[in-house]
Amino acid sequence: MKKKSRFLQTPIEPFRVDRALTADQLLTRMERISFQGRNLATAHRVWQKMLQDDVTIFLGMAGALSAGGLRLIVAHLIANRYVDCLVSTGANLYHDLHETRGHHHYLGTAHPNDAALAEEGIDRVYDTFASEDEFIGNDNWIADFAATLEARSYTSREFLYLLGGHLWTSTGRDGILTAAYRANVPIFCPALADSSIGMGLSQARMKKSGTGYIDIIGDIVESANLIIRRPRTASVVLGGGTPKNFINQASVQAEFYSDQVGGHRYALQIVTDVPQFGGASGSSLEEAQSWGKLATDAEQVTVHADATLALPLLVTALASSAGETLANRKPLRFDISGPVMAVNGRPFPQARFEART
Amino acid sequence: MKKKSRFLQTPIEPFRVDRALTADQLLTRMERISFQGRNLATAHRVWQKMLQDDVTIFLGMAGALSAGGLRLIVAHLIANRYVDCLVSTGANLYHDLHETRGHHHYLGTAHPNDAALAEEGIDRVYDTFASEDEFIGNDNWIADFAATLEARSYTSREFLYLLGGHLWTSTGRDGILTAAYRANVPIFCPALADSSIGMGLSQARMKKSGTGYIDIIGDIVESANLIIRRPRTASVVLGGGTPKNFINQASVQAEFYSDQVGGHRYALQIVTDVPQFGGASGSSLEEAQSWGKLATDAEQVTVHADATLALPLLVTALASSAGETLANRKPLRFDISGPVMAVNGRPFPQARFEART
Amino acid sequence: MKKKSRFLQTPIEPFRVDRALTADQLLTRMERISFQGRNLATAHRVWQKMLQDDVTIFLGMAGALSAGGLRLIVAHLIANRYVDCLVSTGANLYHDLHETRGHHHYLGTAHPNDAALAEEGIDRVYDTFASEDEFIGNDNWIADFAATLEARSYTSREFLYLLGGHLWTSTGRDGILTAAYRANVPIFCPALADSSIGMGLSQARMKKSGTGYIDIIGDIVESANLIIRRPRTASVVLGGGTPKNFINQASVQAEFYSDQVGGHRYALQIVTDVPQFGGASGSSLEEAQSWGKLATDAEQVTVHADATLALPLLVTALASSAGETLANRKPLRFDISGPVMAVNGRPFPQARFEART
Amino acid sequence: MKKKSRFLQTPIEPFRVDRALTADQLLTRMERISFQGRNLATAHRVWQKMLQDDVTIFLGMAGALSAGGLRLIVAHLIANRYVDCLVSTGANLYHDLHETRGHHHYLGTAHPNDAALAEEGIDRVYDTFASEDEFIGNDNWIADFAATLEARSYTSREFLYLLGGHLWTSTGRDGILTAAYRANVPIFCPALADSSIGMGLSQARMKKSGTGYIDIIGDIVESANLIIRRPRTASVVLGGGTPKNFINQASVQAEFYSDQVGGHRYALQIVTDVPQFGGASGSSLEEAQSWGKLATDAEQVTVHADATLALPLLVTALASSAGETLANRKPLRFDISGPVMAVNGRPFPQARFEART
Repeated sequence: MKKKSRFLQTPIEPFRVDRALTADQLLTRMERISFQGRNLATAHRVWQKMLQDDVTIFLGMAGALSAGGLRLIVAHLIANRYVDCLVSTGANLYHDLHETRGHHHYLGTAHPNDAALAEEGIDRVYDTFASEDEFIGNDNWIADFAATLEARSYTSREFLYLLGGHLWTSTGRDGILTAAYRANVPIFCPALADSSIGMGLSQARMKKSGTGYIDIIGDIVESANLIIRRPRTASVVLGGGTPKNFINQASVQAEFYSDQVGGHRYALQIVTDVPQFGGASGSSLEEAQSWGKLATDAEQVTVHADATLALPLLVTALASSAGETLANRKPLRFDISGPVMAVNGRPFPQARFEART
Repeated sequence: MKKKSRFLQTPIEPFRVDRALTADQLLTRMERISFQGRNLATAHRVWQKMLQDDVTIFLGMAGALSAGGLRLIVAHLIANRYVDCLVSTGANLYHDLHETRGHHHYLGTAHPNDAALAEEGIDRVYDTFASEDEFIGNDNWIADFAATLEARSYTSREFLYLLGGHLWTSTGRDGILTAAYRANVPIFCPALADSSIGMGLSQARMKKSGTGYIDIIGDIVESANLIIRRPRTASVVLGGGTPKNFINQASVQAEFYSDQVGGHRYALQIVTDVPQFGGASGSSLEEAQSWGKLATDAEQVTVHADATLALPLLVTALASSAGETLANRKPLRFDISGPVMAVNGRPFPQARFEART
Repeated sequence: MKKKSRFLQTPIEPFRVDRALTADQLLTRMERISFQGRNLATAHRVWQKMLQDDVTIFLGMAGALSAGGLRLIVAHLIANRYVDCLVSTGANLYHDLHETRGHHHYLGTAHPNDAALAEEGIDRVYDTFASEDEFIGNDNWIADFAATLEARSYTSREFLYLLGGHLWTSTGRDGILTAAYRANVPIFCPALADSSIGMGLSQARMKKSGTGYIDIIGDIVESANLIIRRPRTASVVLGGGTPKNFINQASVQAEFYSDQVGGHRYALQIVTDVPQFGGASGSSLEEAQSWGKLATDAEQVTVHADATLALPLLVTALASSAGETLANRKPLRFDISGPVMAVNGRPFPQARFEART
Repeated sequence: MKKKSRFLQTPIEPFRVDRALTADQLLTRMERISFQGRNLATAHRVWQKMLQDDVTIFLGMAGALSAGGLRLIVAHLIANRYVDCLVSTGANLYHDLHETRGHHHYLGTAHPNDAALAEEGIDRVYDTFASEDEFIGNDNWIADFAATLEARSYTSREFLYLLGGHLWTSTGRDGILTAAYRANVPIFCPALADSSIGMGLSQARMKKSGTGYIDIIGDIVESANLIIRRPRTASVVLGGGTPKNFINQASVQAEFYSDQVGGHRYALQIVTDVPQFGGASGSSLEEAQSWGKLATDAEQVTVHADATLALPLLVTALASSAGETLANRKPLRFDISGPVMAVNGRPFPQARFEART
């Protein structure tokens, strides 16, 4: 009898329907099917490995995930330290703040009469609606808060910590910003100017001169220092965008100052974009390896799917499968309350990269 | 206080992580989030309604679902009469037959050395591998079987019933073709010539003259008669392709001969294509309403997702939520064993549309 | 000075704007840029090479290209023998027939009120409208014609030749069907049952018993014989779908009967689908090489683009760059008027594959 | 005879092949076909109208357009004032700087051995390669330049003007940055921190304390002031990303301070993303109308295409069709050389929005 080819080792096992499956079991069965279903199951496995290993886990989020109902999943990931550092677009933090302040987004439809919406002051995000008046109220609330700060530059990390604290004090409600504040998990927002938080900050200048200065270059320094300090890292990316590149860039930047750094050890991304058009959001993790953003032997997987479809299943499964691992995890302890961030009690140098090791 | 806009009625409820959620509960929570996650949850609701209503449910499948590990989900849907009629591409039936005959598809990778695969006789479907030798064996097995049939035309529906029967007798194994055979659920394959089953049929002609004739136009007549006989119908489409249009066309065709027909009453589709390029696979269900393929008041939803990711979750949830409904369902009883198909004991006219009602 | 890497040989040349560029020059400049722009330029080069080489060129078309305004480009390709054999979906031939009969499709919009369209009998294809009444007239016209044919099976190739002839006689107008008729270029339509031409054929049975039989398995035999007779082939695919696989399958089938056949020597495809979901429409040409559908050393290129955007530019350029080549080309001479097709005067065996060579 | 439906007014005119067509004529013919081909033709028409009207035209660019060979098209658009203000990702400016400094990107392939690339210090952008050593050289060059600046915050607009000037002085070569410098066209880069320019700025701090401070909130103020000063605006977006939202946000922000502002009067976008996943890059222009980012009666069009494919054709056509219009255009005259920007000789207020009108 002919020997089986080396390419034909592990058979596909057709998924068998069983009404009693938990999310964890569902994904375990999906490891043996194909295409993006298999990739989601692999993402589950890769994330478990990250948690078991001694790595700093970055989470990037882009796309309208907060408006779209995923903000408490992200808050859960932060509060329970499935991740150690969040890099987000401004919009996701803004829509989080909107709900934490007690407002809502609403179920809408994908092809309404947008002129009618405009007339009623309704802002649309695909199939989701919100009140423009409430948004204007948020902007003003942010401006008022920013105007209470000192007339100096704040990194987005420091500013967002303070904003999360103010939000927690005012509302006592769960959300991304408040969870990060309470768990001392740093948030970076490299494109803060491209969001309504940025608009609020710009309006602060009308209230008090010298306010509303964000030191985004300082964020580059700090994020790289995080990696210089502990060179073993992992990357979880939702949606691509500026967070995806910022997380990768931090590793590349850190490598200039420490030869211990060799790219992320694990990477998983859930993106709807594809690589064929050259943009960063859809770029492959293989491509990231050419740059050294990702170690060439890293475990990695890309899932081409809408995060609103993939993340609830993935994190529900992880909550079940990774419980014990999480309990045993010893994540870095951050002090992020001031201009200079500290890790496990040891501060970074001010406005400079850590010394070359 | 200002009255809430009519557009702002039902708040998004951020998904809360709970490790104990069943698939059913997971989708129930996803009804209150946004984008494709919400759409998948809506698909769950729409399918439940189909099952509760007095409708004939068509299932269309295109894309490499059988090779990709979803064939036993489809077999489950057929055996338990979540659906009443399958319209499939030839490839999905062929890859089903391959596994039912005891062969496998295998876990592979997405960017292998394809020249090396070719040299070893490995055929690739994205990240899934199979043995070309085994495929050639299947083709021959199909040709041998087809050469045993009478030298006349068979509709794809009749041929596939006989093929399923032969497969069941030979193997006693579960699969799409065998499940449909055992449950007397008709399968139509309008593009049978565009598949390895077609190749097997073409090879039958080398074995016995006059064999391998498939009456695909007869399939049009029969599928329309199904709808003329019971004008209330529903459509579940996976992946688009020829099955999607064939199911819609049956309704349009039936309408020529019966004014009781008014388009499908329910429609759900899980597709990766989008409407913006004009192709039928990605076309919207709203567009289908312009043609009368779908009733203008039909409940409908499109999920833009890979079926390997969406279907395991959806059907697991449905197995739990629709159990009682299925038990009470009184689906049509088909006789599909001969040239003329019968419904609930009453045969269709031969090779003609039913009389105008 | 450090030697340049072997990976850094040919610089990108930024595209320079010049208002006087012809389409041909435009694509020549695009050979030195990136992504899908470069791929379209490469497609231009690959098609030129096909025309210079001694190969039979198959053209596959799927998606709403005829309704969308590309039918006279395809007619031009046929009439001037840029291609030697067309494989099409039924819809593209039907919408071609619609216009050749003097009707039109109309500029519409992408998000109209589809209920209002349905009420007025307007059928929509994304942003394009047509009259349902006129469509019903076409179906009847096709049925009338089919009812004049002998009560026997016709391959789609034979039937479409006769249909093209009838259309030419009735209208004298240019189009795909009439161009193919006049140029004796065979058209295969493996999924004819999944189209309004199929609907017309099914209605023919109401007019005259024994009509409307299409031998799609015979099409498999004939298309493979075409390749057995002249094993050097090329494939141009627009939109994927059944034509893409049918063209590839013909080569695989032919290989069973002739060891001269080794997959297409050239391949270009313009598709909007991507490979990541496993479907055939988006599948890569590398994947096709694993199956032997494409020679492992074939020149090939995939362009991820809407054909309505890519094809006008590509064929305009080709009309300019390939003029002389076309004049010198000595394409196969087909006789496709009867049940048995002949190439350069030598008929194929009837309903059988050519003898193994 | 039955009256034609109001929905069936303008027939599709099948594109006729003519080797002598100019780019302009090609697009004119494409106005009468369907799908994305028609949309590109409409984009041509909409851009012409922008140029004829009295509006400030913003151009947004995201995706790897500079690396991908489109930077001299953008430079041409700036130099000839087809646009009045550029909003870009940092990467596009960085890759522009790379080539202006005399380096190159290189033709590569889409599925190379990325580990081999990493070993040779080659960075990949899909099918395009570049030297990491040269990139490191750029970063250092940027850091050196930034360290020569005063120890204060610079808006990205001021910094990029100075960078463009330094680049022009050093090289005398054409490019985006140098063209904008010479034409006094402002460039905003809201996510400068997410790019290698940001990395260079962060390294400046190692060279001279107090350098590398970018005031991205100041960019919000300035971009809104641009619109307050002249409320009639238009938006051309390539690829989505932060530039797309920043351009829209400027209009929304300006509206707080002037009731003359009512959203962009024209908008065209060329994007590969689609709206169905809720992200901003793919979001529809109709959705933008709900927010007031776009006037509800604006002329607008979305082209779903890779810019490398669409832009060369579009701008070549525009160069021919809009020549006279451009000659007659009286664009705003900017002074962008210092901390406070001036328009037509009149400066903006410092770090504040213009007074409410």
